[in-house]
Amino acid sequence: MTISDKAIVLFGHGSRDPLWREPIEAVAARVTQLQPGVPVRCAYLELEQPDLATAAAQLVAEGATRITIVPMFLGTGRHAREDLPVLVEALRQAHPGVSFSLKPAVGEDSRVIDVLAGVALE
Amino acid sequence: MTISDKAIVLFGHGSRDPLWREPIEAVAARVTQLQPGVPVRCAYLELEQPDLATAAAQLVAEGATRITIVPMFLGTGRHAREDLPVLVEALRQAHPGVSFSLKPAVGEDSRVIDVLAGVALE
Repeated sequence: MTISDKAIVLFGHGSRDPLWREPIEAVAARVTQLQPGVPVRCAYLELEQPDLATAAAQLVAEGATRITIVPMFLGTGRHAREDLPVLVEALRQAHPGVSFSLKPAVGEDSRVIDVLAGVALE
Repeated sequence: MTISDKAIVLFGHGSRDPLWREPIEAVAARVTQLQPGVPVRCAYLELEQPDLATAAAQLVAEGATRITIVPMFLGTGRHAREDLPVLVEALRQAHPGVSFSLKPAVGEDSRVIDVLAGVALE
């Protein structure tokens, strides 16, 4: 297994409910199945740990130099549009040698919309 | 175009942010593209209109007798697991001639998890 300098953070809202995070953790497990060499962490805006700064620091400590942040939001409100870019800018300040890439929220991806429409029609 | 007795409600959390609902509305538009004869409505738990009761009543008034409710939640916390079944039970009481089917939250669907993992790995 080759360890990549690339890593992924799946960023979700968070909830007090311990079952809430199961789908996001299932996505992380699927990412690992598909590409075992790419480290992946879940991180949360609030109510759950780790937060984004902690997850990113762990990945940097493990050698990641390119970190992609994937907002796991179906709705694209202020958390995805405003809060998250501020957090990512703070990561860039904290880790100047690391490249951070912030993806659009998954709810904006046409493939996600397609598969959701298919599920709804069953 | 044949109008079906089947209809779909895409049920999301809701937000004060008017842009928040765009992905869910995009899924509704895609459903209509795929099956123009199946009426589809978005409905929200809070902070946006219509609520589930209003959307369901509209579909019943238009002749729907089988309504599928699709929880548009990636995380499966108490909103999806506890609040929504109570709302659906109230629909069954209010419309005894109509069959209401409550799907699992979309975040539990393996095809959704697969496509999210693929998006994360790009």
